[in-house]
Amino acid sequence: MRRKVYVTGSRPDIRVPFQEVGLGGGEPPVRLYDTSGPEGDDPPPRIRAGWIAERGPGDRVSQLHHARRGVVTPEMEFAAIREGTDPELVRAEIAAGRAILPANVNHPESEPMVIGNRFLVKINANIGTSAVSDSTAAEVEKLRWATRWGADTVMDLSTGRNIHETREHVIRNSAVPIGTVPLYQALEEVGGEPARLDWEVYRDTVIAQAEQGVDYMTVHAGVRLAHVPLAAERVTGIVSRGGSIMAAWCLAHHEENFLHTHFRELCEIFARYDVAFSLGDGLRPGSIADANDAAQFAELDTLGELTRIAWEYDVQVMVEGPGHVPMHKIKENVDRQQEVCGQAPFYTLGPLTTDVAPAYDHITSAIGAAVIGAFGTAMLCYVTPKEHLGLPDRDDVKEGVIAYKIAAHAADLAKGHPGAQARDDALSKARFEFRWEDQFALSLDPDRARSYHDATLPAAPAKTAHFCSMCGPKFCSMRISHDLKGYAEQGMRRKSREFTEGGGRVYLPVVE
Amino acid sequence: MRRKVYVTGSRPDIRVPFQEVGLGGGEPPVRLYDTSGPEGDDPPPRIRAGWIAERGPGDRVSQLHHARRGVVTPEMEFAAIREGTDPELVRAEIAAGRAILPANVNHPESEPMVIGNRFLVKINANIGTSAVSDSTAAEVEKLRWATRWGADTVMDLSTGRNIHETREHVIRNSAVPIGTVPLYQALEEVGGEPARLDWEVYRDTVIAQAEQGVDYMTVHAGVRLAHVPLAAERVTGIVSRGGSIMAAWCLAHHEENFLHTHFRELCEIFARYDVAFSLGDGLRPGSIADANDAAQFAELDTLGELTRIAWEYDVQVMVEGPGHVPMHKIKENVDRQQEVCGQAPFYTLGPLTTDVAPAYDHITSAIGAAVIGAFGTAMLCYVTPKEHLGLPDRDDVKEGVIAYKIAAHAADLAKGHPGAQARDDALSKARFEFRWEDQFALSLDPDRARSYHDATLPAAPAKTAHFCSMCGPKFCSMRISHDLKGYAEQGMRRKSREFTEGGGRVYLPVVE
Repeated sequence: MRRKVYVTGSRPDIRVPFQEVGLGGGEPPVRLYDTSGPEGDDPPPRIRAGWIAERGPGDRVSQLHHARRGVVTPEMEFAAIREGTDPELVRAEIAAGRAILPANVNHPESEPMVIGNRFLVKINANIGTSAVSDSTAAEVEKLRWATRWGADTVMDLSTGRNIHETREHVIRNSAVPIGTVPLYQALEEVGGEPARLDWEVYRDTVIAQAEQGVDYMTVHAGVRLAHVPLAAERVTGIVSRGGSIMAAWCLAHHEENFLHTHFRELCEIFARYDVAFSLGDGLRPGSIADANDAAQFAELDTLGELTRIAWEYDVQVMVEGPGHVPMHKIKENVDRQQEVCGQAPFYTLGPLTTDVAPAYDHITSAIGAAVIGAFGTAMLCYVTPKEHLGLPDRDDVKEGVIAYKIAAHAADLAKGHPGAQARDDALSKARFEFRWEDQFALSLDPDRARSYHDATLPAAPAKTAHFCSMCGPKFCSMRISHDLKGYAEQGMRRKSREFTEGGGRVYLPVVE
Repeated sequence: MRRKVYVTGSRPDIRVPFQEVGLGGGEPPVRLYDTSGPEGDDPPPRIRAGWIAERGPGDRVSQLHHARRGVVTPEMEFAAIREGTDPELVRAEIAAGRAILPANVNHPESEPMVIGNRFLVKINANIGTSAVSDSTAAEVEKLRWATRWGADTVMDLSTGRNIHETREHVIRNSAVPIGTVPLYQALEEVGGEPARLDWEVYRDTVIAQAEQGVDYMTVHAGVRLAHVPLAAERVTGIVSRGGSIMAAWCLAHHEENFLHTHFRELCEIFARYDVAFSLGDGLRPGSIADANDAAQFAELDTLGELTRIAWEYDVQVMVEGPGHVPMHKIKENVDRQQEVCGQAPFYTLGPLTTDVAPAYDHITSAIGAAVIGAFGTAMLCYVTPKEHLGLPDRDDVKEGVIAYKIAAHAADLAKGHPGAQARDDALSKARFEFRWEDQFALSLDPDRARSYHDATLPAAPAKTAHFCSMCGPKFCSMRISHDLKGYAEQGMRRKSREFTEGGGRVYLPVVE
């Protein structure tokens, strides 16, 4: 029912992938945004190589640089076609800093996508090796798996051994932008002792990763020396790994965070590769008790200052947000970030809306993610069921991605995003007309939807039968609704007579 | 770590159960609201038998009747102790119609609980046999299972054979209020043909169920003849089973819904048993496209009229709500219901915030449930992963209950419910201090939290080790945070020196 199709843009080498869902019942096919990349095990083609070569090298090769000069790049057009919107809107939003198009010139394999409040809400999936699990092949498999289910970007948070090799494999196999936290590798370079970190080690790590093609990097430059004491009395202190590393460095040296003091040099490097900043929220709250506190908002003010500095260098910026936040405190997070950071895209981890459900934090956080997405957050970093407990495996990655696709789509509907409801309407119409195969094909997880249906009604004919697996064969909602339509058209008494003469039998519905 | 304890009220036969969680680290124990009922297979004791006998029989035996006369019943005190609030508040809210305490005089086994905006958000789990699955034992097992995980009430939606016997077993084994939809059984009595339904058959069914001890009944009296055409042009028509049955009856007879014309007689019956109305939303939307439409709100207006009629008879009332609603249209549902229905408790099914995720509708709807709960909905009817696809099994019931406990608790936090955050704070403190056993014991699902932790770090010592299963043994967030505390207390330079002399080693955190 689903097949990959390509829409060609203004030039033949702009070929934008979609998943096309063919439908029965005389319904037109539905085209779905596609992040799945190449089928099979082949690495993705270098679709951007020509576009990058045409523009040539320079000190400022970023999409923001071109957008500000009024140029609609092939990347912008590609992203616009995926979004079903005007390429000029993509350019204008990038130029204004309200959107980013993460596209390192050394990652030509990436299929351009745009992150911003005016566009579809995106989701990120984290993968990465650790001290207790470090198979490179497993990470590449997680990458393919995450993008198959809809991850728009993937962050490689590898620690431990083989960080560089793992990342090389991940980038070369990725059709989605790849993000990293360079601090993790820098810490490995100095034997895992934060006090031994310095600007030179960090800078060299960033350059090495930029050369590989990392599209955006989380930089914890907002954890300033003066902010650290603000976290001292928290219930959960500093829960961001990067944040605690930099806080430790500040403690050890009693100096300002070297990422903050060297931020402009970092901007010059990022500008040469079109690496986008993901300004890390190292002081984000790790519990409901710590939400929206002084430490968090002091750092946010700094991130606003850093956003404007990055823009001076034509470097694209998004800003990271929490974390753990109860529902009534979510809106303030978006409003303050948008005000303080000049409407740069907001990129939040959840937030988790309660602390009491370890093993279900994909759900506690999908609630917060949907709410914060509806308020204008541009990208949602997924949380898996293993959050706080262990390392996500393949199944956890899928659970996290699906939960976040739900949150992102619910937010798109709440924002009234053009066209977002078409998929809901097509699926609901299929459901109501008992086109089971269409309902499965339009769902976020056709495999599981089918298996759940088959668990109750295994027989193949059931897929086309006009009854549902809850009510059984005696009833269905089809006929009553057809009666209703005729009834509305032809008037009450006559239909009543026909209906009674027809036996007065009706069918019961799908839901309840 | 957990044990059942009882708090005795103003008389020795008021013994209120709690789950007490003993904690390490010198922390005081935490008491959790307990719905689990008797341990083992024994039926629950008839704790209310004496209280009911003391009050004696009458035409109006409802909690509302007594509340209006200024009487705080033992049931009200019991519910107040569970909520950690003043019994007088419970009485006053019931008297005002803003809360209900479902307590059929023939269900003395039920542990009193209160449903209202001023109290903890409650959740309902649906069970019930069907034409394709009708094991009475299985339903009793689902009941115990659902209440073990936190279901505050259970609705028996059985259809097919053995409805009466199944319900008898469910009620006698239930320590939580039981709800039903009498129309389902009445339809069976007339061979499944809605046109053959009449008031007498329905009335006799209601009386039989009231005699058994059903605590609240869904009555679809709001589906009026004039409303039916309003649903004709919907994408998903009428998706409520009860709604479509009554719409069919209206079509067949071209008469007003007999539940509406005989509503006062129904009130007289309910008043004699203290059965509470759950006024059914037979015209609720079954898709995003149909949310908040004319049919839905026309029925809601009727439910408001019926609420006031029921109150004339001292009958307790809650009002059912949707269904499928995008996030931006949720608030209007609560606001209109509260206004139109005189602030009677709202009881909603989800709502699902998107239609595109069959097999994950416990998540699509937990998002909507959390949001509508935060806006003032008093009870949330769960949705399982099998919604739209098949019949929920034991695992589905648990997934649905946990997802809804999360939604209800997130809503309690958002409403600033007194004491709601204590569990979050205790768990987060345990997490931060690496008291793993305490973290598990305080979580909604200790079994799964433990198993996920063990999947990464199986060794028993890991439960007490001061490091987390994500970062591995090298790092943890404890020490940096302790450094931070001392640092805040003792000043910056001195701590900096101590820190460096101490090796400058810090630990990384739990999250990220």
